[in-house]
Amino acid sequence: MSEITFDIIKEIAQPTPSKIILLVMDGLGGLPHPRTGKTELETAKTPNLDQLAAKGICGLIDPIAPGITPGSAPGHLALFGYDPVKYTIGRGILEAVGIDFDVERGDVAARGNFGTIDEAGLITDRRAGRITDEKCAELSQLLDGQVIDGVKIFVRPVREHRLVVVLRGEGLVPEVTDSDPQKTGVSPLSVKALIPPAEKLAKVANEFLAQAKVILAKHHPANMVLLRGFSQHPDLPAMGEIYKLKPAAIASYPMYRGLAKLVGMAVLKTGKTVEEEIQTLKKNYADYDFFFVHIKGTDTAGEDGNFDAKVKVIEQLDRAIPEITSLQPDVIVVTGDHATPATFKGHSWHSVPFLLYSRWCRPSKITKFGESSGATRLPAAQLMLLAMANALKFIKYGA
Amino acid sequence: MSEITFDIIKEIAQPTPSKIILLVMDGLGGLPHPRTGKTELETAKTPNLDQLAAKGICGLIDPIAPGITPGSAPGHLALFGYDPVKYTIGRGILEAVGIDFDVERGDVAARGNFGTIDEAGLITDRRAGRITDEKCAELSQLLDGQVIDGVKIFVRPVREHRLVVVLRGEGLVPEVTDSDPQKTGVSPLSVKALIPPAEKLAKVANEFLAQAKVILAKHHPANMVLLRGFSQHPDLPAMGEIYKLKPAAIASYPMYRGLAKLVGMAVLKTGKTVEEEIQTLKKNYADYDFFFVHIKGTDTAGEDGNFDAKVKVIEQLDRAIPEITSLQPDVIVVTGDHATPATFKGHSWHSVPFLLYSRWCRPSKITKFGESSGATRLPAAQLMLLAMANALKFIKYGA
Repeated sequence: MSEITFDIIKEIAQPTPSKIILLVMDGLGGLPHPRTGKTELETAKTPNLDQLAAKGICGLIDPIAPGITPGSAPGHLALFGYDPVKYTIGRGILEAVGIDFDVERGDVAARGNFGTIDEAGLITDRRAGRITDEKCAELSQLLDGQVIDGVKIFVRPVREHRLVVVLRGEGLVPEVTDSDPQKTGVSPLSVKALIPPAEKLAKVANEFLAQAKVILAKHHPANMVLLRGFSQHPDLPAMGEIYKLKPAAIASYPMYRGLAKLVGMAVLKTGKTVEEEIQTLKKNYADYDFFFVHIKGTDTAGEDGNFDAKVKVIEQLDRAIPEITSLQPDVIVVTGDHATPATFKGHSWHSVPFLLYSRWCRPSKITKFGESSGATRLPAAQLMLLAMANALKFIKYGA
Repeated sequence: MSEITFDIIKEIAQPTPSKIILLVMDGLGGLPHPRTGKTELETAKTPNLDQLAAKGICGLIDPIAPGITPGSAPGHLALFGYDPVKYTIGRGILEAVGIDFDVERGDVAARGNFGTIDEAGLITDRRAGRITDEKCAELSQLLDGQVIDGVKIFVRPVREHRLVVVLRGEGLVPEVTDSDPQKTGVSPLSVKALIPPAEKLAKVANEFLAQAKVILAKHHPANMVLLRGFSQHPDLPAMGEIYKLKPAAIASYPMYRGLAKLVGMAVLKTGKTVEEEIQTLKKNYADYDFFFVHIKGTDTAGEDGNFDAKVKVIEQLDRAIPEITSLQPDVIVVTGDHATPATFKGHSWHSVPFLLYSRWCRPSKITKFGESSGATRLPAAQLMLLAMANALKFIKYGA
């Protein structure tokens, strides 16, 4: 299969008034219930989605490749049309994004733990006895806001013993080792540059860690910080520039807002429920031409192993479909970023159902949206091409 | 489709106690019988395979790409998860491997013919009148065991006029030309280095050929050796290191044992029949976590154009399935390395049916294992990713 690069897409994409809505039910893909043989989506009563399916095309996408279980970041990058192996987001940046921290181009972020060291400086607990969220916030504030060698350091609490450190300044190169040895009974490691240009970051990080040790000395058991996964803002090409779109994201969870921001989407303020998300869509419908709407509940229910709850979230979205179609978007895509089968209780490698509706579809004549209904099978990153084509936003390739 | 490199696989693969059995029916893919419209596999009575199919996933693999007819080596490399275009095995090495010669890293091998030259030194017969296997063995022994410039030379008979020459020593670089001009009426060519580091090999090869001419002078019509296809041990990354597996091969034919050895599998002693192979599997089941079991009969029958014989071999394997499933492997894959349709009497480019069974499959609800039954279509090299995923041997890709 020929690879359609961003350079090609930039050549054939053109701005048009047509509108695309991408509805992502997180972890949508499922596995059969042992009693009924039907997946969550096949079990759900989805008259509205089925009607779209019948008029549109149905199939399955592989988020990354067959057999590969995606994390949330590669799963979403693929849906936004980015090759999830070529474009990656480091763990530190993702952790920052996941707490709604507004990372900027050039920033380096690391995941951190509050930990415990003894008088000899050896680690006795990598999680500081799992301190409370409140304690984590209080201690993070003590460490926050230092400026070392012109580099501003942001320290933010995540949950329990977990924190994020973001370093902002000129000339930061993230190729450094972790300070977290990932075991107890040894000293924290000093951060080392893996290549010469990373010396500056290593020096600043080590100085920050030395300061942290002084500041936290009296806060046993959380008397040390351990850092790992230093990574830089991924500087992804902006979706708006590649696809000539004005894209907006509607998501109630910070992680997905952050991912959308990394690809240059506008992030719209919204509430926590599906209904509130749909209201946000309606209110902002005139101002953008691509909407990413993220529904978290399917994944949460899948992770919990709660088959019925996942079915209910799908049915809830189905009830919202008429409000969405009443906006008369040119293209509606409904899919997931990966599978989270309730029987598996976690992200899995299974393919994910999608439906794509537009007036220009060659209908696949499938009357029930589900895993077993589609013959078409695509890499997820190609779904964006189909959406663009069906919105008549691509001109002809070649003369 | 994103390319899943070995570097990525090494990151996500983890050793587990779970077990994978890969059953390869050589040349499994078929074409419809002109009378019934059913392929060999569709004609065969396979109640046990069909039961696995119904609980697992069925589909078709393209060993290399649509339209490309694979040789045995690329066909198997793909099944072992190696891109068969990126990783290749030279013809000399393959010929050596095919006679169970134990090639080592650094060895260079060439395919050879005994041929006939006249008094003027011109080739009159490139096959020495197709001498007998016995004569070939006798003459090979005369040439075997020389040491030239510190390079040890092994000469082994293959069949009729065909032989293999393996050169073992320091600094052998295989970029040299053939001595076999592939036509009569001309002199054998002298072996020439195509790049300077290959001078040593060219010199040794020419000296060996000169010696052979002297030694064979009285053995008309087999009074000369012609060499072609010099190639080096491919030094493939070991399957065990990429996939964190302990893999073993069970194959009654030397070629397949040799291929397995080239990817670092342990090669288990076994007998000639399917039943003996299954006994070998049972006896060694505790000691490995990946088993490649090779069944040759399907290909042989296909090459012979014997539709019914191919059906019988498939039915024979089907009868062995309960013994295999009684081992309770986590994943069973049944497929072929390429198609050898009996109506075509040779390897062909057609896609090859596969079934994959594990408790974590999303069943494709197909009740008869065959060519026309599967919606899923994959490059063969991705089947290994699915097997690994279903054995829960991969962690999540990306956060």
